[in-house]
Amino acid sequence: MTDARASRFPVTATGIARAYARGEFTSRELVADTFSRIETGDPYVNAFTDLTVERALEEAGQLDARRARGETLPPLAGVPYAAKNLFDIAGLTTLAGSRVLAGNPPASADSTLVRRMREGGAIMVGALNMDEFAYGFTTENHHAGVCRNPHDLSRTAGGSSGGSAAAVAAGFVPVTLGTDTNGSVRVPASMCGVFGVKPTFGRLSRYGTFPFVASIDHMGAFARTVGDLALTYDALQFVDPLDAACSARAIEPVSNAKPARTLRIARLDGYFDDHASDDARGVALAAARALDATETAAFPNAEASRSAAFLITAAEGGQLHLPTLRTRYDEHEPLSRDRLIAGALLPAAWLLHAQRVRAVLQRRVLELFERYDVLIAPATPVVAPRVGEEFMEINGQRLATRPNLGLLTQPVSCLGLPVVAVPMRAASGLPLAVQLIAPPWREDLAFDAARRLEAAQMSYCPPALLFAGLPLPAASSGIRR
Amino acid sequence: MTDARASRFPVTATGIARAYARGEFTSRELVADTFSRIETGDPYVNAFTDLTVERALEEAGQLDARRARGETLPPLAGVPYAAKNLFDIAGLTTLAGSRVLAGNPPASADSTLVRRMREGGAIMVGALNMDEFAYGFTTENHHAGVCRNPHDLSRTAGGSSGGSAAAVAAGFVPVTLGTDTNGSVRVPASMCGVFGVKPTFGRLSRYGTFPFVASIDHMGAFARTVGDLALTYDALQFVDPLDAACSARAIEPVSNAKPARTLRIARLDGYFDDHASDDARGVALAAARALDATETAAFPNAEASRSAAFLITAAEGGQLHLPTLRTRYDEHEPLSRDRLIAGALLPAAWLLHAQRVRAVLQRRVLELFERYDVLIAPATPVVAPRVGEEFMEINGQRLATRPNLGLLTQPVSCLGLPVVAVPMRAASGLPLAVQLIAPPWREDLAFDAARRLEAAQMSYCPPALLFAGLPLPAASSGIRR
Repeated sequence: MTDARASRFPVTATGIARAYARGEFTSRELVADTFSRIETGDPYVNAFTDLTVERALEEAGQLDARRARGETLPPLAGVPYAAKNLFDIAGLTTLAGSRVLAGNPPASADSTLVRRMREGGAIMVGALNMDEFAYGFTTENHHAGVCRNPHDLSRTAGGSSGGSAAAVAAGFVPVTLGTDTNGSVRVPASMCGVFGVKPTFGRLSRYGTFPFVASIDHMGAFARTVGDLALTYDALQFVDPLDAACSARAIEPVSNAKPARTLRIARLDGYFDDHASDDARGVALAAARALDATETAAFPNAEASRSAAFLITAAEGGQLHLPTLRTRYDEHEPLSRDRLIAGALLPAAWLLHAQRVRAVLQRRVLELFERYDVLIAPATPVVAPRVGEEFMEINGQRLATRPNLGLLTQPVSCLGLPVVAVPMRAASGLPLAVQLIAPPWREDLAFDAARRLEAAQMSYCPPALLFAGLPLPAASSGIRR
Repeated sequence: MTDARASRFPVTATGIARAYARGEFTSRELVADTFSRIETGDPYVNAFTDLTVERALEEAGQLDARRARGETLPPLAGVPYAAKNLFDIAGLTTLAGSRVLAGNPPASADSTLVRRMREGGAIMVGALNMDEFAYGFTTENHHAGVCRNPHDLSRTAGGSSGGSAAAVAAGFVPVTLGTDTNGSVRVPASMCGVFGVKPTFGRLSRYGTFPFVASIDHMGAFARTVGDLALTYDALQFVDPLDAACSARAIEPVSNAKPARTLRIARLDGYFDDHASDDARGVALAAARALDATETAAFPNAEASRSAAFLITAAEGGQLHLPTLRTRYDEHEPLSRDRLIAGALLPAAWLLHAQRVRAVLQRRVLELFERYDVLIAPATPVVAPRVGEEFMEINGQRLATRPNLGLLTQPVSCLGLPVVAVPMRAASGLPLAVQLIAPPWREDLAFDAARRLEAAQMSYCPPALLFAGLPLPAASSGIRR
């Protein structure tokens, strides 16, 4: 494949939009180059499940025409992007990683966030691989094939938005859309070494996306720089009457937000140390040092918050899929179908207990934010595990890999807190991200801290690798075109 | 017993406060008279489980001293009242109708609403009988004995706030406090022929009360006139940081609210007709005629709302009591303990489905209130059933009495809507109330409509009866003093 570094096009969304506005290339040229890189590189990575070539060329042509007419260009003009395949993309069947939905008719309209990207001038190039129904942390999808980590093809990309993180890490596109219920943006961001944002619960519209856990589902995005992530996040913000959860909040842009004079930052200890490998603790400590965060703080009952997330997820997910679990069990992902059934059958008393724990902790965590603006924790307990690795070891404890990669993300998203995941370089040489956690509706504080880490050259978003010449991994299920 | 009509004291709270302020009697005199009426009449009714004689005399003495000093008197000055025995009353063990809690230490402080009544000048005289843990509609309590309907001692008082409604109906006190999850204010108001208010979910603080279904529990009150009910409701309003559900709403008094020029009123048909006896349909039609409500309207999926309330109630109630159901099953009320266990063990998927149905209907019902200010429906399908009557017949359908007395109240409270229950006289001669249902946070509209019904002499709050000479019903478990 062509190394992204050698391309004549800028690597970042900000760079692309700027160069495009200056007339340095046409959108159709960049789209052609993008597809050529995906065609060459994605057989190694398997990030994409669908390419929207016609749509991309049409959107690019329209944009080129607008530029030719001298129109003011939108902020993401010419930026190619792709979305996890649970976002409705007009004309494509929304798969949510599942064979069960494969017979559905194509989406008749774009989801709200895809429409926002289009209105922002971005060019849709395809849909991305994910764990079935977003229930997993490794994107080892039995239908679409494993999504591989661009930095080490023997490793997973993380999940469930594995394709979204890998597509950015591989340099196929500068930004992608994903979702995060228990860590599905932050885990793959950590493993693939890219930036990710999971905003406050209710911030970004979920309209036109396939749900997983309605009470915890968050929309998010991936990018290679904080600037790109902020630009994308701002383009996505929209008061959407079609998503009851996000209909009440005003738009609060972060792209040009003035940095705070000082940030009161603490590193989370206790649970977040206990469930972290040396690699993970190492990046959190390094981030804290770089941000002059000398204090440590205890998250209120992280263990209970994580348990609550686990039970609520299983129950809501199970309830959602019960009709097809009853009739089409064999078509469901073997890695998650039994967990869904168990979740649907949990005693109501357990679910209620989990819901109450969650409500109590949502109030209690606010006390912590009276003292701090940002909390630091590792995003994952370990660097990307190898494909098929069933177990991992953390501080001498052997844990099942798939359900436990979210150990450090679940307690945070269960309470709906906004997080920017900043990729860093772990001692072992692979990427591993830190979470910068802010109070509800204060994404600006997390972005501010992320910018400081980036400016201190602490973030590590490794360049896309050269796959050409490497043996192709086992066949994937192929891309729909 | 002394007939309340023959007393030298006014019957209403408004009358008492006014006469007391004029110096017509001392608070201690009225308290003594009140206890004498209770001592004589309550062996027939069994509304009270506790009398707080010392406290009442102390409060009365303090009030008399304030009046003697010429202080401005609060709005409920000198008004005797009592509270359902799930309200914390300092010095009394909060029973919530249960033997399971009987060994608990006495409450160390008043619940917020009891404190509000005290600050409003009202005099606490005792705690009132109820269905165990508020799970029932008849106050046939196996520990405290049956609470009997003052208008026909062979009939139940309704429940679960049966003691609260009966104490007002019997003329023991002019106002009482109760609670309403699925109809526990409106059902006994209907059966005993008194006014009741169940405000919007979140309006009145629940702090210091024993919960039942945290997501549906409402606090409420009973009185003999709309004016008394409004006066009491206004005294209870308070922005209480100690109840998360009621911490965000401003106080909106109704006592002196200006009536609307016109009210757009409709009578609910469909489900509310289908589940009503001739008696019940009759009072709703009469109320509609008196209020010039010619239109009928359909409540959005009342059947589903009722089912949701039923499942959520069983599950949340079951979850709450599971620890003692496991260890002290025999001490739980035989009439409800098995339903609690079944509720705790419901599959999580059913509970989630019920929670979603509820959320959807909460949004859908708002559309109906774009066209109407007040909706009319009967409060109960039938007049008060006889004590021990296991089944009732509605439109040829034989239904279990206890769970189905809430057929017409459950769909409304599940959505959190405010209701004033106005007692009327059914064709059969017994009381039966109509619900005046308003949009969320618009109690004023329901009170406005209630005032019109009262002014049109449509309401029927029969005078307390003379029990003296009647044979005493089977022994109750006796009052604590």
